[in-house]
Amino acid sequence: MGRKGVKGGGRTSGAEGRGDVLEGRNVVLEGLRSGRKIKKILIDVSALKGRADGKIGEIIESANGRGIPLISTERAELDRISETGSHQGVIAEAAPRGETSLTSLLKGIRGKKEPFILLLGEVMYEQNLGAIIRTAEGAGVDAIVIPKRRTAPLSPTVARVSMGASEYVPLIRESTTSALSILKREGVMIFGVEADAELQYYEADLTGSTALVFGGEDKSLTSTVRERCDGIISIPLMGKIGSLNVGVSVGIVLFERVRQEGVRGG
Amino acid sequence: MGRKGVKGGGRTSGAEGRGDVLEGRNVVLEGLRSGRKIKKILIDVSALKGRADGKIGEIIESANGRGIPLISTERAELDRISETGSHQGVIAEAAPRGETSLTSLLKGIRGKKEPFILLLGEVMYEQNLGAIIRTAEGAGVDAIVIPKRRTAPLSPTVARVSMGASEYVPLIRESTTSALSILKREGVMIFGVEADAELQYYEADLTGSTALVFGGEDKSLTSTVRERCDGIISIPLMGKIGSLNVGVSVGIVLFERVRQEGVRGG
Repeated sequence: MGRKGVKGGGRTSGAEGRGDVLEGRNVVLEGLRSGRKIKKILIDVSALKGRADGKIGEIIESANGRGIPLISTERAELDRISETGSHQGVIAEAAPRGETSLTSLLKGIRGKKEPFILLLGEVMYEQNLGAIIRTAEGAGVDAIVIPKRRTAPLSPTVARVSMGASEYVPLIRESTTSALSILKREGVMIFGVEADAELQYYEADLTGSTALVFGGEDKSLTSTVRERCDGIISIPLMGKIGSLNVGVSVGIVLFERVRQEGVRGG
Repeated sequence: MGRKGVKGGGRTSGAEGRGDVLEGRNVVLEGLRSGRKIKKILIDVSALKGRADGKIGEIIESANGRGIPLISTERAELDRISETGSHQGVIAEAAPRGETSLTSLLKGIRGKKEPFILLLGEVMYEQNLGAIIRTAEGAGVDAIVIPKRRTAPLSPTVARVSMGASEYVPLIRESTTSALSILKREGVMIFGVEADAELQYYEADLTGSTALVFGGEDKSLTSTVRERCDGIISIPLMGKIGSLNVGVSVGIVLFERVRQEGVRGG
């Protein structure tokens, strides 16, 4: 288990290879549902004794069915181990996931579906990153590309805020520039999202193979990124405050794609 | 000035009538820009001495122009007073705003514009309420109706998270049921937003006089509310996780109205 304050936000590494820490009912449950390899689950002793509620009940059942050790643990001990501060009585230790590259991800879905990729600039707040992962999963995003540097790690807190969506959407740590080259080569249409572009986000065709690029928290796109985009789109603002939260902006534009695909499809 | 831990989250009241506390550059600046009556501004002593950056500079200029006392204050004193923990070197004391009722708000805009009203159920987290106010301001919402009970107060933290948008969008504390009766009487179309409705949010006509009702954080609409709606709409989810953050849901649906109005207008 990762300890509080371990660098890398709960991803332990090195010779021990101890894997990822999943905290909270939603995250552990989605980890199980997604078929991820889970080594053991520490569970509040009272939850094992008493009447288990819906999600805890499903966790226990699924763990038993798959032969995953359920370790009855005192609440105080869970509190001590917890990195998120809200473990809800359950903490699991999962095998680390193999890292995916954008190239192999695109190869994997080729011929099966049209890729829908989200690229983010610096997103330093765990709350924002977690919320964006949750939204992206809901919009059917195939992968999120985020730079290695100056971004929040995929910590137990990010996983918690994502409600377990991080178990489904691959987070690829790759430079935006290199990712854009790969996407261009694959013929994916790339739209950058920025304030004050002439094209409104709903005027662009976001259906089919599409990548959307956001600058990050109160950051614009760099000129290098802008040049590599097929179009720059904006969210028109009707008020006096000149910007939206990055997580909300992402939601609005991703679901515009969902809308356009829905209208196209039916 | 409100003190830490004062009930009502920084809105002081009673005989003293000391008004609202505005914290941080954006909030104080929007307070000044909105023409709100401000009694005094405590400002970091070093900001008054040194080269003032864009926003602090505008605050100083605006305060001087309007004869608002600028009180040079030690950073440690600002830290002590601050309720948000991130005052950015500036805290203002504003006159309390008169509370608006939905009836008088609708009366005020009648004949000038078609009302666009947001109704929220329980929103208990200050971060969520602040984010929603920011989004609503950006989407051109005329007022947010929120129940008096079990919701976050309009605290300095909510104002901070809203980036000062709370200076522009009236927050009306009124029961959802009574607000819906008023809106119905005024001929405003009411849409409730919920998971699993048959109608997608983009299939409904959200232009013109429209009210949108959200349940709150992971809450559905009550049956009383549902019965009073002209339609129930959903955001279709493409993934495995069955819900979105309430702030993101609000953003998606409010900006669908912006999109529809934009398409209609242009």
